[in-house]
Amino acid sequence: MSVASSRHFLQIPGPTNVPDRVLHAIANQTIDHRGPDFAELALEIFDGLRAVTRTSGEVVLYPSSGTGAWEAALVNTLSPGDGVLMYETGHFAQLWFDLAVELGLRPEILPGDWRTGADPAAIARRLRADAEHRIKAVAVVHNETSTGVVSDIPAVRAAIDEVDHPALLMVDAISSLGSIDLRHDEWGIDVTISCSQKGLMLPPGIGLNVIGTRALRAAESAGSRRSYWDWRPLLEAGRKGYFRYTPPTNLLFGLRESLAIMLEEGLDEVFARHRRHGAATRAAVRAWGLEVLCADPATAPGTEHSGALTAVLLPPGHDADRLREVILERFDTSLGAGLSKVAKKVFRIGHLGAFNDASLLGALGAIEAGLGLAGVPHRPGGVTAAIAELTGGADVP
Amino acid sequence: MSVASSRHFLQIPGPTNVPDRVLHAIANQTIDHRGPDFAELALEIFDGLRAVTRTSGEVVLYPSSGTGAWEAALVNTLSPGDGVLMYETGHFAQLWFDLAVELGLRPEILPGDWRTGADPAAIARRLRADAEHRIKAVAVVHNETSTGVVSDIPAVRAAIDEVDHPALLMVDAISSLGSIDLRHDEWGIDVTISCSQKGLMLPPGIGLNVIGTRALRAAESAGSRRSYWDWRPLLEAGRKGYFRYTPPTNLLFGLRESLAIMLEEGLDEVFARHRRHGAATRAAVRAWGLEVLCADPATAPGTEHSGALTAVLLPPGHDADRLREVILERFDTSLGAGLSKVAKKVFRIGHLGAFNDASLLGALGAIEAGLGLAGVPHRPGGVTAAIAELTGGADVP
Amino acid sequence: MSVASSRHFLQIPGPTNVPDRVLHAIANQTIDHRGPDFAELALEIFDGLRAVTRTSGEVVLYPSSGTGAWEAALVNTLSPGDGVLMYETGHFAQLWFDLAVELGLRPEILPGDWRTGADPAAIARRLRADAEHRIKAVAVVHNETSTGVVSDIPAVRAAIDEVDHPALLMVDAISSLGSIDLRHDEWGIDVTISCSQKGLMLPPGIGLNVIGTRALRAAESAGSRRSYWDWRPLLEAGRKGYFRYTPPTNLLFGLRESLAIMLEEGLDEVFARHRRHGAATRAAVRAWGLEVLCADPATAPGTEHSGALTAVLLPPGHDADRLREVILERFDTSLGAGLSKVAKKVFRIGHLGAFNDASLLGALGAIEAGLGLAGVPHRPGGVTAAIAELTGGADVP
Amino acid sequence: MSVASSRHFLQIPGPTNVPDRVLHAIANQTIDHRGPDFAELALEIFDGLRAVTRTSGEVVLYPSSGTGAWEAALVNTLSPGDGVLMYETGHFAQLWFDLAVELGLRPEILPGDWRTGADPAAIARRLRADAEHRIKAVAVVHNETSTGVVSDIPAVRAAIDEVDHPALLMVDAISSLGSIDLRHDEWGIDVTISCSQKGLMLPPGIGLNVIGTRALRAAESAGSRRSYWDWRPLLEAGRKGYFRYTPPTNLLFGLRESLAIMLEEGLDEVFARHRRHGAATRAAVRAWGLEVLCADPATAPGTEHSGALTAVLLPPGHDADRLREVILERFDTSLGAGLSKVAKKVFRIGHLGAFNDASLLGALGAIEAGLGLAGVPHRPGGVTAAIAELTGGADVP
Repeated sequence: MSVASSRHFLQIPGPTNVPDRVLHAIANQTIDHRGPDFAELALEIFDGLRAVTRTSGEVVLYPSSGTGAWEAALVNTLSPGDGVLMYETGHFAQLWFDLAVELGLRPEILPGDWRTGADPAAIARRLRADAEHRIKAVAVVHNETSTGVVSDIPAVRAAIDEVDHPALLMVDAISSLGSIDLRHDEWGIDVTISCSQKGLMLPPGIGLNVIGTRALRAAESAGSRRSYWDWRPLLEAGRKGYFRYTPPTNLLFGLRESLAIMLEEGLDEVFARHRRHGAATRAAVRAWGLEVLCADPATAPGTEHSGALTAVLLPPGHDADRLREVILERFDTSLGAGLSKVAKKVFRIGHLGAFNDASLLGALGAIEAGLGLAGVPHRPGGVTAAIAELTGGADVP
Repeated sequence: MSVASSRHFLQIPGPTNVPDRVLHAIANQTIDHRGPDFAELALEIFDGLRAVTRTSGEVVLYPSSGTGAWEAALVNTLSPGDGVLMYETGHFAQLWFDLAVELGLRPEILPGDWRTGADPAAIARRLRADAEHRIKAVAVVHNETSTGVVSDIPAVRAAIDEVDHPALLMVDAISSLGSIDLRHDEWGIDVTISCSQKGLMLPPGIGLNVIGTRALRAAESAGSRRSYWDWRPLLEAGRKGYFRYTPPTNLLFGLRESLAIMLEEGLDEVFARHRRHGAATRAAVRAWGLEVLCADPATAPGTEHSGALTAVLLPPGHDADRLREVILERFDTSLGAGLSKVAKKVFRIGHLGAFNDASLLGALGAIEAGLGLAGVPHRPGGVTAAIAELTGGADVP
Repeated sequence: MSVASSRHFLQIPGPTNVPDRVLHAIANQTIDHRGPDFAELALEIFDGLRAVTRTSGEVVLYPSSGTGAWEAALVNTLSPGDGVLMYETGHFAQLWFDLAVELGLRPEILPGDWRTGADPAAIARRLRADAEHRIKAVAVVHNETSTGVVSDIPAVRAAIDEVDHPALLMVDAISSLGSIDLRHDEWGIDVTISCSQKGLMLPPGIGLNVIGTRALRAAESAGSRRSYWDWRPLLEAGRKGYFRYTPPTNLLFGLRESLAIMLEEGLDEVFARHRRHGAATRAAVRAWGLEVLCADPATAPGTEHSGALTAVLLPPGHDADRLREVILERFDTSLGAGLSKVAKKVFRIGHLGAFNDASLLGALGAIEAGLGLAGVPHRPGGVTAAIAELTGGADVP
Repeated sequence: MSVASSRHFLQIPGPTNVPDRVLHAIANQTIDHRGPDFAELALEIFDGLRAVTRTSGEVVLYPSSGTGAWEAALVNTLSPGDGVLMYETGHFAQLWFDLAVELGLRPEILPGDWRTGADPAAIARRLRADAEHRIKAVAVVHNETSTGVVSDIPAVRAAIDEVDHPALLMVDAISSLGSIDLRHDEWGIDVTISCSQKGLMLPPGIGLNVIGTRALRAAESAGSRRSYWDWRPLLEAGRKGYFRYTPPTNLLFGLRESLAIMLEEGLDEVFARHRRHGAATRAAVRAWGLEVLCADPATAPGTEHSGALTAVLLPPGHDADRLREVILERFDTSLGAGLSKVAKKVFRIGHLGAFNDASLLGALGAIEAGLGLAGVPHRPGGVTAAIAELTGGADVP
């Protein structure tokens, strides 16, 4: 049981641990969202988000979850009946597909094995076959939160361009933004979708769309019935630092602070830290004798392995949810569950957002201890291996 | 200019001043929204919201603004083309109408003068004329935030029943919930719409629907295309204390606390406090020789005068926005602007949420001082009159 | 009774209302007081305190109350049996005298009437009579917290110099520092004594001494038995930003922030604000027909009237503590009690520290209402008069 | 370098990590320390402290560091020239001795080796030789913070009783209270000395004395010159829940919360947790091939080994301060320095206060990694050994 003298380790792949500076910012008194101080706050945030998403384009924020930001991207640019090409990287790709169905779109999803990223060649093939351009958008998850597999977005862009298809490229950056480099402009993304509670180190409650020129044009001429999600009035108000409706002011206080924290640390340092934590986690998993869900044979960062989370397969016959329960009860450490078709087979270690080496070693230590208590066959020494990885292997015998 | 040694008076009619207990609750570390502690939190909140809305029905919460909760109420129960009868109590009634148009509904709005509440007789007349029952919902604002006028919801219900019309009754309780008594079940409301940043004493970021049985049935059989706003999966997950997508966890920490605060004080005491503050504010306005926008000749609480806010008319030729600017600059006190057709003609004093007599006297003092500095013709003595009202008239000569 | 939806007005003359920025700073995680970040913090604070006390001298901080800082000033410079000349400005001058007795010093206190400041002529007379220089220190309270009377420190200095007496000048600036201008170097003060919970806008827990060259010399060659209070090891450690023993780290986080706030606002603006609030409070008291305890016939600021607090005499037969109780119960506003020989005869209004015009009007409104409820004879209109004072009299008929 | 996205590990042996609940409590607005809410707060705290120190005696709190509480214990009970028998358990015993010298007492200190606890036989021998009872007090450190060695207080008491000596027994429980069981009444302690920033999980700023009947009697009849530290007026005011001078109100808010947290967890559980963390830390140290400073050959908890901290000896030629610097820089983890005669030879791991298994494993992981980076000869696997100790050895091959 959790006691107040025990600091919880929130190692699900989001929401993530929130830095005290951000929590204190959120605890400031709410201000008038029509007053001058608010406009300054909002304009500063829009600038910061542009820096973090590497765009000179438009940013729209919603009081919403990431799911709302998914919906916003679709209803602003697509009309009922429009085709959307998706790729089954895992559970969240599937959920986004389901949402598109509910909105009256005609999504199709290229089958995936949940252990590899989106296949650009398969996307190119499907688009080539779409001679009538019924497919209006390609929608891909950058970092699949259910599997810890990263898709190669520039390669997807190249695949679309290769077949000269006019579809928009929409990228779910929900668990990558702020953890894994994403370059909205350079990579030719039309809509980037994200939210507050992952790499941005905030509590949940803000969804966001980064919008390129082609997507904006699509929103002017087409789109589904919409009001709350409509980009146009939000963009218009946003130019002066205001919102069409009441914004989540206190979370925005936090967002200003978390953007400042990221830029103080340096984006490159932030991404390198996540890569390092991913590599150290995989070293621990290998040392335990367990298997990482991501099937990329390369072990170095910069492959399909995620710096944001690691999904770990348990040996057959062992229940990952039972393991998570033991670790939560005994070590006050929350891990992510396996979802849908990998339910109970995998557990997920979130190592994104506000996180450092000592905390990672603590979390891995809790897992190693939990593996023992839960009777999951493994070799001790995962933390030792992680230390070796973090310190450049110097002290491994 | 605001300095950090000066405590801001946030006297717009929402967002409102947030109690320290609530701010501290929000500043707790985010938790796993799939874990056991979260379920406990959510179930406690649903119970608290039922107590505050006086219902045994269902409650749905969204990471959203109040606008989102408006949209949710409409898309769950109505299909494109459905008629909705609204009443022009003021700016927010009009905005809700506009939203309904955007969603493809066929709203019509009975004209109002922005100084009185919804007219039940006019509603009855219109419904009687709707023999084919094309009107599927009557949508009324309980406390019109742009005018400070309260509509009589039981009378609207009686008007619908009187003509035996099957339309659902939807009530916007955005600026009444937690400030002015509202009885979802007893008053026969089908959907109550509200949000966090008014009487619930929270920052913005949570929208809510309270849903009666008839509305639930409508949602099962009809409704517009929807995903994010869909009640059904949210209700299903909510039964066990969970959400379909990531909930605004930290704001929910705050909501648990603010509900506790309201129930500690006692709902009747909370409402009486708001009525008292409304009466004291009107006493000040009259003493200044200015006019309250709400035209109800009765001055006692419990009439159309709002306990949540007071809109004040300036003499012709005086710019209310200029006055507000002076008061903000010089007294660090934010007041609400006149909106749309009363822009610059009125200013609004929010006296809802976490607020006490001394703070009210401070706000009224700042306004009285600002009237002088801005050169608005008035008589001093507004605060004196408010004191007399607050203390039962004892010390008025 | 206090409820959580009611913001308390803490209008005692200290502890004072603490700005949110300071409270948030205090709520940061404690750090290693032997580490590099701590040294940076401490050195920044010492610099800030020098700026606020207008000195280039030494500053020593204690984990203590102001009483501890009184004791520190005495035991570092004086030996048992040494004479100390004090002046009975009120209750706190008397308490300091008592403390000197307990420490084995030979204090004598020039009698005062508790309505006027220290009399430089009387001090000069007494020193002139002390041909053998048995009096080693003159100890005067700058702003007597029990009466709201300010003593003229430069005049006291001039009195000492006039008779060419070598006594040290010690000044209790407990309720003046940060509220009323004090110039340690320019005024020739040898030891300035203060603490955190008044004009410095912090919770209690830090005592401080500002030490001039002559006092330092006295501490090297004389002084009482001491360990905790000993300046020497603290000064030595302080040069590098450290403490001899564990410092009150989190309060120091707050002190850094409050010093920053004061310097952002500007010291002159801070002092002008306090003078303005003193004048407005006195205008209210006069309008009520009550009497200010400070007997200075001049009403303008810059006289013996305090900008930090105002003590108000009740008509004979009325119990000030009963009035305070009514105001606390009914308006959640704390006022200071009359102390010792003015117990129950006066109440004290603190208007120092983090405070603004609207809050002052709220506090005065609560008092005016309380006077009525408690049956204290008075005329309404105190707040009206205060508004006129705050706004330059513009709107008084 | 420390960045805001990195949670600092404060593993010095105090100040310790402060739970969020306590930090939030401290961040509440200061209240009137003469008002009714304060008295309730203080009385609740006195009760809680009695529970934690297992006494029915008196408790006095000071705005001070632990050093102040040392001084208070001495000046209230002893007069200049009185003998005090101390035992050189380490640096802090020596500092307390120095303080006694500064206060004019005549302390003598029995020599110790800094690796073992106070020797009751040596104390008995010395007392037996003191036929004239010039020794008025025996003053022993319970948990020596510089060495991680626990002295057996009941055995010291028995030694005093055995020779029938009237000396008071004073126990420094600064780093034991709240971490290691201490029974003021049952163990026959006359004065227990402690402070806020160790096992009580608060920031520094509160010193405390628990006072038995004999010590109270001594304070009535004897003692040194004192004012600030004088028990008598504080006890008198304390009976009604007040203080003689301004108390550190916000830290007291925190103390109420931390006492509640300890009692929620259960004192036995708290002490067991500390013992477990001590044992796991020693297991790590042994696995690294390093030596624990505490020389007790027994390795089980309940011996002289401390549950609050572990001091670790580096191999000759290796600088512990350099190691600490590497660990601070690279892993944002603060460790305690070796003090005085063990400077640079040992480093100290604080594992007291608010702490859990995962945090311990993180801290040990940071140390293991730092040993490698700093080139200190060691074997990897310390964390593995700690995990085995924490989980009952289950998963060690």
